[in-house]
Amino acid sequence: MTERFCIVLAAGQGTRMKSNVYKVLHPVAGRPMLQHVINQIKSVNLNEIVTIVGVGADKVMEQIGNECQYVVQKEQLGTGHAVQQAEELLKDKDGTTIVVCGDTPLITSATYQALFEHHEQTGAKATVLTAKAPDPAGYGRVIRNNNGEVEKIVEHKDASEKERCINEINTGTYCFDNQTLFQALKKVSNDNAQGEYYLPDVIGIIRNNGEKVSACLTPDYDETLGVNDRVALAQAEKIMRKRINANHMRNGVTIIDPDNTYIEPDVVIEQDVVIHPGSIIAGSSTIKANSVVGPHTEVTNCLVGEETVIRQSVAKDSKIGDRVQIGPFAHIRPEALIGNEVKIGNFVEVKKSSIAEKSKVSHLSYIGDAKVGSNVNVGCGTITVNYDGKNKFLTTIEDDAFIGCNSNLIAPVTIGKGSYVAAGSTITKNVPEESLSVARARQTNKEGYATKLKNRQKG
Amino acid sequence: MTERFCIVLAAGQGTRMKSNVYKVLHPVAGRPMLQHVINQIKSVNLNEIVTIVGVGADKVMEQIGNECQYVVQKEQLGTGHAVQQAEELLKDKDGTTIVVCGDTPLITSATYQALFEHHEQTGAKATVLTAKAPDPAGYGRVIRNNNGEVEKIVEHKDASEKERCINEINTGTYCFDNQTLFQALKKVSNDNAQGEYYLPDVIGIIRNNGEKVSACLTPDYDETLGVNDRVALAQAEKIMRKRINANHMRNGVTIIDPDNTYIEPDVVIEQDVVIHPGSIIAGSSTIKANSVVGPHTEVTNCLVGEETVIRQSVAKDSKIGDRVQIGPFAHIRPEALIGNEVKIGNFVEVKKSSIAEKSKVSHLSYIGDAKVGSNVNVGCGTITVNYDGKNKFLTTIEDDAFIGCNSNLIAPVTIGKGSYVAAGSTITKNVPEESLSVARARQTNKEGYATKLKNRQKG
Amino acid sequence: MTERFCIVLAAGQGTRMKSNVYKVLHPVAGRPMLQHVINQIKSVNLNEIVTIVGVGADKVMEQIGNECQYVVQKEQLGTGHAVQQAEELLKDKDGTTIVVCGDTPLITSATYQALFEHHEQTGAKATVLTAKAPDPAGYGRVIRNNNGEVEKIVEHKDASEKERCINEINTGTYCFDNQTLFQALKKVSNDNAQGEYYLPDVIGIIRNNGEKVSACLTPDYDETLGVNDRVALAQAEKIMRKRINANHMRNGVTIIDPDNTYIEPDVVIEQDVVIHPGSIIAGSSTIKANSVVGPHTEVTNCLVGEETVIRQSVAKDSKIGDRVQIGPFAHIRPEALIGNEVKIGNFVEVKKSSIAEKSKVSHLSYIGDAKVGSNVNVGCGTITVNYDGKNKFLTTIEDDAFIGCNSNLIAPVTIGKGSYVAAGSTITKNVPEESLSVARARQTNKEGYATKLKNRQKG
Repeated sequence: MTERFCIVLAAGQGTRMKSNVYKVLHPVAGRPMLQHVINQIKSVNLNEIVTIVGVGADKVMEQIGNECQYVVQKEQLGTGHAVQQAEELLKDKDGTTIVVCGDTPLITSATYQALFEHHEQTGAKATVLTAKAPDPAGYGRVIRNNNGEVEKIVEHKDASEKERCINEINTGTYCFDNQTLFQALKKVSNDNAQGEYYLPDVIGIIRNNGEKVSACLTPDYDETLGVNDRVALAQAEKIMRKRINANHMRNGVTIIDPDNTYIEPDVVIEQDVVIHPGSIIAGSSTIKANSVVGPHTEVTNCLVGEETVIRQSVAKDSKIGDRVQIGPFAHIRPEALIGNEVKIGNFVEVKKSSIAEKSKVSHLSYIGDAKVGSNVNVGCGTITVNYDGKNKFLTTIEDDAFIGCNSNLIAPVTIGKGSYVAAGSTITKNVPEESLSVARARQTNKEGYATKLKNRQKG
Repeated sequence: MTERFCIVLAAGQGTRMKSNVYKVLHPVAGRPMLQHVINQIKSVNLNEIVTIVGVGADKVMEQIGNECQYVVQKEQLGTGHAVQQAEELLKDKDGTTIVVCGDTPLITSATYQALFEHHEQTGAKATVLTAKAPDPAGYGRVIRNNNGEVEKIVEHKDASEKERCINEINTGTYCFDNQTLFQALKKVSNDNAQGEYYLPDVIGIIRNNGEKVSACLTPDYDETLGVNDRVALAQAEKIMRKRINANHMRNGVTIIDPDNTYIEPDVVIEQDVVIHPGSIIAGSSTIKANSVVGPHTEVTNCLVGEETVIRQSVAKDSKIGDRVQIGPFAHIRPEALIGNEVKIGNFVEVKKSSIAEKSKVSHLSYIGDAKVGSNVNVGCGTITVNYDGKNKFLTTIEDDAFIGCNSNLIAPVTIGKGSYVAAGSTITKNVPEESLSVARARQTNKEGYATKLKNRQKG
Repeated sequence: MTERFCIVLAAGQGTRMKSNVYKVLHPVAGRPMLQHVINQIKSVNLNEIVTIVGVGADKVMEQIGNECQYVVQKEQLGTGHAVQQAEELLKDKDGTTIVVCGDTPLITSATYQALFEHHEQTGAKATVLTAKAPDPAGYGRVIRNNNGEVEKIVEHKDASEKERCINEINTGTYCFDNQTLFQALKKVSNDNAQGEYYLPDVIGIIRNNGEKVSACLTPDYDETLGVNDRVALAQAEKIMRKRINANHMRNGVTIIDPDNTYIEPDVVIEQDVVIHPGSIIAGSSTIKANSVVGPHTEVTNCLVGEETVIRQSVAKDSKIGDRVQIGPFAHIRPEALIGNEVKIGNFVEVKKSSIAEKSKVSHLSYIGDAKVGSNVNVGCGTITVNYDGKNKFLTTIEDDAFIGCNSNLIAPVTIGKGSYVAAGSTITKNVPEESLSVARARQTNKEGYATKLKNRQKG
């Protein structure tokens, strides 16, 4: 089989992004644009990937890591010049080189694969990936000859009126015979208004050598969107979102409003899950069968079990069991381990705690650094006092305990199995099993005193 | 007047839904698809409705109830076979039979009525409901003769290139002369690739008998959308949402963003109500004049009075008065009865409680199983301790009482009219009228002790 | 330079709005429609603006104020009659008069300016602002002669079939030679079905006098949308939203979903801010560089510093510093002053309080009428008891203090620098510096008592 190489153009400054963030690191669906490109191109079998980055692009290497080789283009002298930076690494190889843009995050591996196959089957020395643009203004037009081969690519500003009527445009993605590419690049000049070396010029050079140049027309124009400003970034986000959501829906997930549901690419969702509007499911989350997420819920890096309901809540980096009820207005912070059939109600925060089966924390509580057994009832307003201003300590509540409302459990402390804590108590010492613990003052009623107070306030 | 009958095809397995939920029970705007169909068709005067359900479709009968008769189609042998299941019930009747699909939830009674009228006026033996599809690929095309009558219906796969250019498609809804229908059905064969009996075949059979077949072209293609997978389900949801919202807007409701507002069909909203984005109004809710709902609010089965504001909150199965302020981040649970001019503030939960006029529960409180009078001020952090681990008890707070912050009211308990509860008290016994009740410890300041503690922590 | 005048037609009843709110006061992006019109027209240099209002339109003058003169049209006798109301004020002037509609909130000052310039350059006596409508049904068509000048305007109902094919429509906005306008108005008759004096009739009258009438075609049809019902109101809102959001994105703001982000026109957002879905940024808010807003967050009239994160929260009329963390589920109420690097966590309400640098209020607290120093740790469940049923009092917490969980600070009270308040304490007296303050009852464990209680409940 022919060897295949890839050059990713990721050195562009992206001035229209108006950002301190390196252009190809702007995320789409939570993942840097360049990462999308590399993930898709890696699905095609490749021998080498070389990413061309600009000066100061350490962050690219940091974020993308060693999934490819990097070459730094020290001066921004045009796309042709950028590709030339890979010459040292690739010039002696035989095979096909695909040149892809780091700012086209929507092109799929299927399209890259189709381009490779088209290129290899036609025997062309160069193949342009093209698309039909609804409004081609601004794009380079692909001029085909009578054989359907590419005669030339004409930039919009240089195009005749007739050429401007052509709606087949150059997407900026190409396959080349590797040797041909680097030979042609040597002939590209920078004799133009910008003083830049343009990659599309190699098409004319190859053609003028009498070699065949082909065009591979991809049916989905949306895929080829290049992101040059934040308006396009939002468009890319929308197209990606639509694609991800349609995929889940086809797999048996109900998404009430896919336009208002935000699911990152690595999320796994099982059959008959229902996702209500305003839900964000991010990171490496998994939602198991028959669960309900949303409305207005954000779940990040969580494993959510079956038949669980999470409404108007936020959960992150946690493991949530089956048939759990969460929300509305609950906050599950990292390292929570929520057992099956647990209820976490409104205005409850859980952090770095385990809560075992069938326990309930129904209202206005903070469970932090705690180990809560099963069948525990944590009363409204209970607080695990885990912090003394310097260190954090563990609270243990054993199975079947009943914590009265508005209690403070001052860690380190253990509430024994089956014990009761009276409402309004501040517990500083361990409570043995099956005991009642009380720490509160006796009630005094001062009759008529309210009237006096009110008279005094008036006075 | 001609007798009218209806056969609803609801036996399809819907394998592309990839669901354990019976296909026609998947909800659109909170109501099963089939329920939409039955509601709309019932608005047309009908003598009988027969719904054809598949084996194991008990849930259909359970959810839809006795609004129609059911016949079980034991084997799935095609739409023609499905209609035949109604033969026993309908064969001896004279009149018009409409055959409708259980998975076209958007067709309105006006369209069904127009089809009946078209059918009865033209004197055709069969009438096909048709629509012009923007992209007809995949649909059966309606071939008309020079008189505009239907010559035949050609399935996409059998259509000639010229026929494929026709964009008038068969929606799968028909009117028939009842006797003609069942006679024609007997002649339908299953001699095809799938081995199924297809209902559209009766059109050809009737036409071959020299009878007239007509087509009733409905102007709104969107209405005829059939739901075969969750992508189409989301489309149906969107079209239905748009329809419901436009209707409210025409009636004088301001919806800031109808694309991001979810109102179920039975909701009543009065004039000059303003609905902010991310609002969900479900069930049989009524929102009275000049109220404001949202943003990001979910109201289910509530009666909301005039000039009330509910923001970033959740309310269910409750009655909320006039000029009430709720939220942000409040949770009104079932059986709450909120009087006029009450304020329910942030992080407040109300459950199965009445709160009379002008009372305030402004922050971080739980009012459950309580009867709260008028002009009561419930301080921040107040908790009605209604549960002892086994039973729930009632808290009574009489008019004009003032409950200090972070109090626990341990039910059953009564706070008398005009009384004060001191902040931080746990109240276990009744408080008489106009009294001050205190249950807290005396404050001790240990000077310099903080320094010692900090030194010790460092040590 | 020619003098320029403006007549704003704002007297229409807007019966299709079905509202008690005066039509042109219905807001778009949080600002009355008429205010948008006046703001845009004021950006063009004008000598006078006269707004024609209907009877009972005091609220218009109240809301819009003295940015223009007002004339009351006592009877609603048509648009021609409305313009005539300005005669007294304008008839003796020489110059150009633009007539604009109070219900076209989307027309920009650039378009108004282009209309003036077109009018003044062509030397026409009248110029119609026109647009190409995708569906022109219902609109007046602009009939041009061979010179491209306007021959007449034909109302849809009076148009011939050929005229109805014209898609250039009258937007209802015009420039006139001022004297010509008022002379022509005298000749307009009300001899029509409605018995009204129509402004478009002056076009025919001027043309019949042999004067030149021109048309200025504006490229963006959407801009010319007139709001006659709430469906159109929602459309205007959507177009305005899209315009505002695109503008921020071009300036370097990332908006994850511009369709689900609601930013009012006066908001300032700096570079590399990220706005998550469901965010509402209203009033005169400023969000400084690198901050993150949302998801599901509402910020009104706030100054938000750099690198601050506000998630799933509500903030109003407050000043929030740099590198602050807010939310999820926090409520910042008016007159909060949040210092740099402060943390406000979940279920926390801050009202009319200052919180200095690096302090933390992490959970379930109410800070109202308080002055909190720097490096303070406010424990979970802390409440500033600021209200005695009649007056509000101040709580002072000095630098480096540590407030234990579930404490009540009964104002007026001061917690001295570096002091500790023990968890569960109700503090009524000042705490000196570096002291420990405790106000709670001693814990008693009754062993075995829980078992007894449970047996009793069973009994």
